[in-house]
Amino acid sequence: MEFSAQQLADLLQGQVEGDGTLMVNKLSKIEEGSPGSVSFLANPLYTQYIYGTQASVVIVNADLQLTAPTMATLIRVASAEQAFAQLLEMYNKIKLNKTGISAQAFIAATATMGSHCYVGEYAVVSDGAKIGNNVKIYPQVFIGDNVVVDDNTTLFAGVKIYADCVLGKDCIVHSGTVIGSDGFRFAPQNEGNTKIPQIGNVIIEDDVELGANCAIDRATLGATILRKGVKFDNFVHIAHNVEVGERCYFAAHTVVAGSTKIGKNCMTSGQVGIVGHLTIADGTIVTAQSGISKSIAKSGEVMMGSPAFDAHKYRKAFIHFRNLDAIVQRLNELEKQVKNNNG
Amino acid sequence: MEFSAQQLADLLQGQVEGDGTLMVNKLSKIEEGSPGSVSFLANPLYTQYIYGTQASVVIVNADLQLTAPTMATLIRVASAEQAFAQLLEMYNKIKLNKTGISAQAFIAATATMGSHCYVGEYAVVSDGAKIGNNVKIYPQVFIGDNVVVDDNTTLFAGVKIYADCVLGKDCIVHSGTVIGSDGFRFAPQNEGNTKIPQIGNVIIEDDVELGANCAIDRATLGATILRKGVKFDNFVHIAHNVEVGERCYFAAHTVVAGSTKIGKNCMTSGQVGIVGHLTIADGTIVTAQSGISKSIAKSGEVMMGSPAFDAHKYRKAFIHFRNLDAIVQRLNELEKQVKNNNG
Amino acid sequence: MEFSAQQLADLLQGQVEGDGTLMVNKLSKIEEGSPGSVSFLANPLYTQYIYGTQASVVIVNADLQLTAPTMATLIRVASAEQAFAQLLEMYNKIKLNKTGISAQAFIAATATMGSHCYVGEYAVVSDGAKIGNNVKIYPQVFIGDNVVVDDNTTLFAGVKIYADCVLGKDCIVHSGTVIGSDGFRFAPQNEGNTKIPQIGNVIIEDDVELGANCAIDRATLGATILRKGVKFDNFVHIAHNVEVGERCYFAAHTVVAGSTKIGKNCMTSGQVGIVGHLTIADGTIVTAQSGISKSIAKSGEVMMGSPAFDAHKYRKAFIHFRNLDAIVQRLNELEKQVKNNNG
Repeated sequence: MEFSAQQLADLLQGQVEGDGTLMVNKLSKIEEGSPGSVSFLANPLYTQYIYGTQASVVIVNADLQLTAPTMATLIRVASAEQAFAQLLEMYNKIKLNKTGISAQAFIAATATMGSHCYVGEYAVVSDGAKIGNNVKIYPQVFIGDNVVVDDNTTLFAGVKIYADCVLGKDCIVHSGTVIGSDGFRFAPQNEGNTKIPQIGNVIIEDDVELGANCAIDRATLGATILRKGVKFDNFVHIAHNVEVGERCYFAAHTVVAGSTKIGKNCMTSGQVGIVGHLTIADGTIVTAQSGISKSIAKSGEVMMGSPAFDAHKYRKAFIHFRNLDAIVQRLNELEKQVKNNNG
Repeated sequence: MEFSAQQLADLLQGQVEGDGTLMVNKLSKIEEGSPGSVSFLANPLYTQYIYGTQASVVIVNADLQLTAPTMATLIRVASAEQAFAQLLEMYNKIKLNKTGISAQAFIAATATMGSHCYVGEYAVVSDGAKIGNNVKIYPQVFIGDNVVVDDNTTLFAGVKIYADCVLGKDCIVHSGTVIGSDGFRFAPQNEGNTKIPQIGNVIIEDDVELGANCAIDRATLGATILRKGVKFDNFVHIAHNVEVGERCYFAAHTVVAGSTKIGKNCMTSGQVGIVGHLTIADGTIVTAQSGISKSIAKSGEVMMGSPAFDAHKYRKAFIHFRNLDAIVQRLNELEKQVKNNNG
Repeated sequence: MEFSAQQLADLLQGQVEGDGTLMVNKLSKIEEGSPGSVSFLANPLYTQYIYGTQASVVIVNADLQLTAPTMATLIRVASAEQAFAQLLEMYNKIKLNKTGISAQAFIAATATMGSHCYVGEYAVVSDGAKIGNNVKIYPQVFIGDNVVVDDNTTLFAGVKIYADCVLGKDCIVHSGTVIGSDGFRFAPQNEGNTKIPQIGNVIIEDDVELGANCAIDRATLGATILRKGVKFDNFVHIAHNVEVGERCYFAAHTVVAGSTKIGKNCMTSGQVGIVGHLTIADGTIVTAQSGISKSIAKSGEVMMGSPAFDAHKYRKAFIHFRNLDAIVQRLNELEKQVKNNNG
């Protein structure tokens, strides 16, 4: 994957300024550029870097005014930011463009595979599984019995999907993530076996991305559901029978307990917890390490604390908390004065 | 796995009301029933659903009184709840009844295998491992040197067990869980290599279930121990030399630091932390996101907060915390009044 | 791996007291000793155990004075603690001394392997990967395209490393850990595809140890970096473009958000969170479950709370928090008195 400055300029519909024959084979930030890399300058705060960057080629806005010569070859385009985003996208697609079925993969006779799939070494596609077109199954992935994976979905190395789960189109699941493990439901009051069988599944709609080492438990009965466009960071735990609404974004180590229903466009920061059997309104935002203990009916609330309440009120209370020692001293002083006055 | 209503009724010792030839092949909640599914009605609050459910067959209590006709075929039994639990159990057993040793599994010549085991594709059973009867080893599981796995235990796809660890009978370990990784012990004050070798193991007794993506570290010396009937949700972290007592239930993302001893029948909610070298009494309950920083001597305490104290007192203090701004305003007001009185 | 007491004594330059022909094949704590095990006594508080221990052999300090006979054979050495540490180290090296390339491993034709490597069953080394000397790659490890792994590094079963990442010498990575998964960066305001391509990599320097089930995300552009001597417990999450300084120690479930730069010798306890785009000074210590929300400029601070501030001040404030109910009652009382005084 090597391009000349001139080839890039043609691709991005830009003008070369300098040596069009310079070759580049990687992308870099302008402040970390090295020979052979192409970078970009869009933010005026970074303009200083263009004079010293080691990058071979820099993509700049057509109207950039230089105050000194540059070592790098420039490519002037209408929008440097958009042009670079286009390069990122291309680079990513080429890098991830794996194809072919490895001779060291196991595909059950009763599984069905779409066209143009990639199946890496030591991957397992079990009985009755249905794999769509252009699906990429990296090495050591496990796909259980009767699992459905729709078109253009990518499962990175080592993803594990239990029997009967369903994944939509254009999903991405990162390494170590487990889909369809049993919900954590027991009857501790019983003698002997306390396990409640978990025979539901997980349904993941289109355009969902799950980070590394997440776990999405299957439902007891029915389905645990992640709606269209949901995006999870790493280590997100979703319990049995949860439903996460469209285009929710959950940061790392977010935990949602059983049977909770979460609306659309909600966002959590890291290490947030949400207890079971709640209903959370659309657009709820939860700050880092907060714990939601009650249902939220009004859309767009910002919640903070454990247990959480309105973030604005929390921050006010927390300022007083930090100051509690001084507050108690004021109280001590007042008590003395009042006692003296009464004395 | 398809049954007629009559076959189910015979199995559950119930009476068919309606078309006994209707076929069902799945289980559903009554409010989510679809053609071909069997559901149940036990909770009177759900009685409304029986008139409209799409389920083909509904199991009901013998004494249920209908106020309108139903579309579904009914099966009347002594206890609809117990009958349905029996079906769940059966369904689960059939679904998980894998057998046979895959030709694509690796079993070391010095390992011993019991009878009626399942070993899936790309699983590894290393030198000197001892596997009991009816053990189910799903694809891509790793069993290290000299590991012992006793009868009827199930290891789902991708479980990793380091050398010398011991698992009891009737255990279930979900995908991505790691057993026997090194404890986190270092001597940071040393120059160069700071690692303290971790040569103990993990001992897991009978009837333990571990969720997905847990990690149970081996002991420095001796054993990290999970006693009989322990149940963990996903992402539980157990450090070196910890002992978890019988029938403890730990929710997702619970963390126990090194050498802590936990009594029987303790329960944690999500994201609980317990620091190292503590002793925790039987029956301790810890609320979500709380952090135990001291040993607990009295049984049955409920703990809350970080650091945690008695949950009843915590809730009281937290009400005042929420209200701190008003409390400080009252203090301001009093100071003014006392000053005026003195002035 | 069986040794006689005399062989051990020769190895440790000690003197046998008792039966030098006794054979041992494992290490134990003195209070948990069993026949066939060798233990040690260094801490005077444990002297009581030497008279009753079941261990066959106990290593003791040369100057230990006995007040009764022991059943165990003793080996007297200059320092019992150091001699035992030496045994631990030896035991660990022998246990982990795997060699050879499994016939059931997949090594791409364009990958390069150093000498004396171990590659276990169903491991994958992809195109263009460069593996150094004495590298141990356990079963079911995945090494992506162009990954570099330097000399003497150990990757335990099931580690997953995405394309283009770089690991230094003498590193240890435990099972289930994922290196190089995509950073969690999206543009939620966009219609349709909101993903920002993540084309950077992860660079891990020498002598780094990562616990089980960690996740280190690749950079958007450039590199996520773990400096020399970094040690992580299990479930640590490092987001895109983070830099962790030399010899930082992070306990289980620590979370660092995107683009934060952490200095040298920092330590976190369990479940700590650090938000994105911060700069954290050398030697910062963060207590369990705390959340760092602002950059820290001064070295060696101890931080506590969520959001965190100085730990000493936090503990003081928390004492008042626990006591808030009594404080509010004092305020109520004062208000009454002042009202009476004014009345």
